[in-house]
Amino acid sequence: MTELITAVEAVDVRFPTSRELDGSDAMNPEPDYSAAYVTIRTSEDAAGHGLAFTVGRGNDVEVAAVRALAPLVTGLSVDEVLGDLGAFSRRLTGDSQLRWLGPDKGAIHMAAAAIVNAVWDLYGRREQKPVWQLLSEMTPEQLVALVDFRYLEDALTRDEALELLRRAEPGRAARATHLLQHGYPAYTTTPGWLGYDDEKLVRLSRQAVADGFDLIKLKVGADAVDDMRRLRLAREAVGPNIKIAVDANQAWGVRQAIAWMSTLAAYDPYWIEEPTSPDDVLGHAAIRRAVAPVKVATGEHTHNQVMFKQLLQLDAIDVLQLDASRTAGVTENVAILLLAAKFGVPVCPHAGGVGLCEMVQHLAMFDYVAVSGTTENRYIEYVDHLHEHFTDPVHVHDGHYLAPTAPGISAELHPASIAAHRYPDGPVWNLAPDPATP
Amino acid sequence: MTELITAVEAVDVRFPTSRELDGSDAMNPEPDYSAAYVTIRTSEDAAGHGLAFTVGRGNDVEVAAVRALAPLVTGLSVDEVLGDLGAFSRRLTGDSQLRWLGPDKGAIHMAAAAIVNAVWDLYGRREQKPVWQLLSEMTPEQLVALVDFRYLEDALTRDEALELLRRAEPGRAARATHLLQHGYPAYTTTPGWLGYDDEKLVRLSRQAVADGFDLIKLKVGADAVDDMRRLRLAREAVGPNIKIAVDANQAWGVRQAIAWMSTLAAYDPYWIEEPTSPDDVLGHAAIRRAVAPVKVATGEHTHNQVMFKQLLQLDAIDVLQLDASRTAGVTENVAILLLAAKFGVPVCPHAGGVGLCEMVQHLAMFDYVAVSGTTENRYIEYVDHLHEHFTDPVHVHDGHYLAPTAPGISAELHPASIAAHRYPDGPVWNLAPDPATP
Repeated sequence: MTELITAVEAVDVRFPTSRELDGSDAMNPEPDYSAAYVTIRTSEDAAGHGLAFTVGRGNDVEVAAVRALAPLVTGLSVDEVLGDLGAFSRRLTGDSQLRWLGPDKGAIHMAAAAIVNAVWDLYGRREQKPVWQLLSEMTPEQLVALVDFRYLEDALTRDEALELLRRAEPGRAARATHLLQHGYPAYTTTPGWLGYDDEKLVRLSRQAVADGFDLIKLKVGADAVDDMRRLRLAREAVGPNIKIAVDANQAWGVRQAIAWMSTLAAYDPYWIEEPTSPDDVLGHAAIRRAVAPVKVATGEHTHNQVMFKQLLQLDAIDVLQLDASRTAGVTENVAILLLAAKFGVPVCPHAGGVGLCEMVQHLAMFDYVAVSGTTENRYIEYVDHLHEHFTDPVHVHDGHYLAPTAPGISAELHPASIAAHRYPDGPVWNLAPDPATP
Repeated sequence: MTELITAVEAVDVRFPTSRELDGSDAMNPEPDYSAAYVTIRTSEDAAGHGLAFTVGRGNDVEVAAVRALAPLVTGLSVDEVLGDLGAFSRRLTGDSQLRWLGPDKGAIHMAAAAIVNAVWDLYGRREQKPVWQLLSEMTPEQLVALVDFRYLEDALTRDEALELLRRAEPGRAARATHLLQHGYPAYTTTPGWLGYDDEKLVRLSRQAVADGFDLIKLKVGADAVDDMRRLRLAREAVGPNIKIAVDANQAWGVRQAIAWMSTLAAYDPYWIEEPTSPDDVLGHAAIRRAVAPVKVATGEHTHNQVMFKQLLQLDAIDVLQLDASRTAGVTENVAILLLAAKFGVPVCPHAGGVGLCEMVQHLAMFDYVAVSGTTENRYIEYVDHLHEHFTDPVHVHDGHYLAPTAPGISAELHPASIAAHRYPDGPVWNLAPDPATP
């Protein structure tokens, strides 16, 4: 009997993080970290889990988008899907009717991410390997077969990608061993949420250094005077040798970003993240030229590989912050890692939220073992929120992510966590079902 | 009593256009033209109608996105909304949780478009004016107040926009009179769908010329040999003096676009539309440099004003094809018209589908009367499909759109058309309700 995908289930799961102002920034004052949580089931009782992260309202739209894609997936042969994951991804993003909602962007693309990640989880479980290892053991030919080069070839050809992967092949085994022994560098955003008072900022900044982090991040962009004070306090707390990144979460126009950053330059920020609209490739390039040597970082809202291609072609960023579920999951992120390697730009994945740390660690570790071959100037973002809800939570010690060894992509939620946080009917929300919510 | 918005209703309406291969192109072989159809109701029994256009599957996601935005709208004072439509638009697109699904792109942004257009329709009905006239009678100060300049000011400042509008003010009345007498130039895509055979292509091309059109458009991009033959047949049918645009609907990579267009150059195409990914600003710029004097056109999938800004900053397009419901409706389109005028690029709105001709005519006519002040090298796309479902359908005669005179934005569907085409329960679809469809 051929093993078939029998179901694509989607659940609206929301965590009431706004009650504590965890995750507050210039554009997201009160997020409720949420997931359109996807489980793929097969006729052999296997399962894979993935999710698309949102910040509350709209998570129901994301669930609707997953359900719109589900008929493209149910009934497929598992072997055929896993045998050509590039074709599977194009099947999801290339549907001639559904792609009108994107193409390759917004709710429908994030829904594709959740499904693609769930399929990679299924693959990892079948092979009994964490996804970073699964990827790192694929041949260069298998890896480039994942990539849709149609819109990339003016920046990265298949042959260039192959060459780049082959160059990294000899060191794979040694790097995998090193990774398992030493982990992968992390940075922390925990001290710097805008909703935290100065005392908490200073205390958590010191704690971050004590915990082994050499890069911390502060949210900025709501008030320039506050930002100067908070950055000064953080700098005083951690000393001159710890890097402090700042993150404006798109609050500024291009000229405003340049002016605002000039007021913060005295405190030696390491990078400015999302200084303006995530769509403004030219704007990022202009800001980068103006604020150097401060680096420019972006990516958590960069919606697909074509946008990353242009950020790289225009030398618009110093740090590429891919996201686990903004672009179409592991498969598109392989293309983005290859683009970054071609252009020599370090990848520091966006994480935090719910499940993002769990998923992106696999991508960064694969990058180290089989693509860029280095962790220099590379970090995975770390925020200590909501990991307890996962069956295979991240482990961060002494400023490093320990490499996960359990099979899959680490995105499985505990059933009890799902039951408690289902929206709107879970007990955490304590709401009557809303007939207007699909 | 203050008049309040009491309801934002959304209906999933789909027309089975795929049964006739109307609308078939290289990326959309079988579209079912659809609308997330929005009605806004007030406590004074007034109503406004707008829609977001989709091509079938996914229209339910669009309806879910409208419903997610609805709580931001119901309960608002109509006077306050109409008194500051710029703030209203930012309220929809700036919601700190919902914007995560964009920001400013994809399903949630198109849902904002449907609501914004419905509110403009309400406004026009209240003022007893078609929206083109309503816009054309606003002061330059009122018009720039609609625009969110935050991400635009490196390309267009408020002062520049004001200056541009003031320069066009003296001629407004004369141009409005001219418009009412002569209409606005149209071009037609009716002959050129990929699903039509050669005989139909030739017959409809000749008919288009007989009907007074001097620009027709052919779909290309599926097969180069077919494209050469079809373009040759069309050229022979219409003669050397009729412009023939071609439209690849994103089928190509950058290098492929350049190579393919070189094979079509002998037949003198007027513009190449959507040669590659709609997100690839740099790609469009490279293609434009290579295919000149053939023009490059794009915009129907350009998801917001920041993307249009960059296309203009990089001289990447010769023709800007704004869409009624891809960007956030009339309000964001005012910004896009101002950007185009600043850069001297003609706007030829995307239309066809369902309701797009009806809505975009108001934008092009406003542009003529009060922004660019000219119809030179400007056309509104016209396709003769589905107009019979609207209470105020477009009227195209002798290659020109006649200016609508009924109040509003012309997007109201006949109740009988809604009832017949509701998905999945309308009789046209003849389907049992699907429990998986919200």
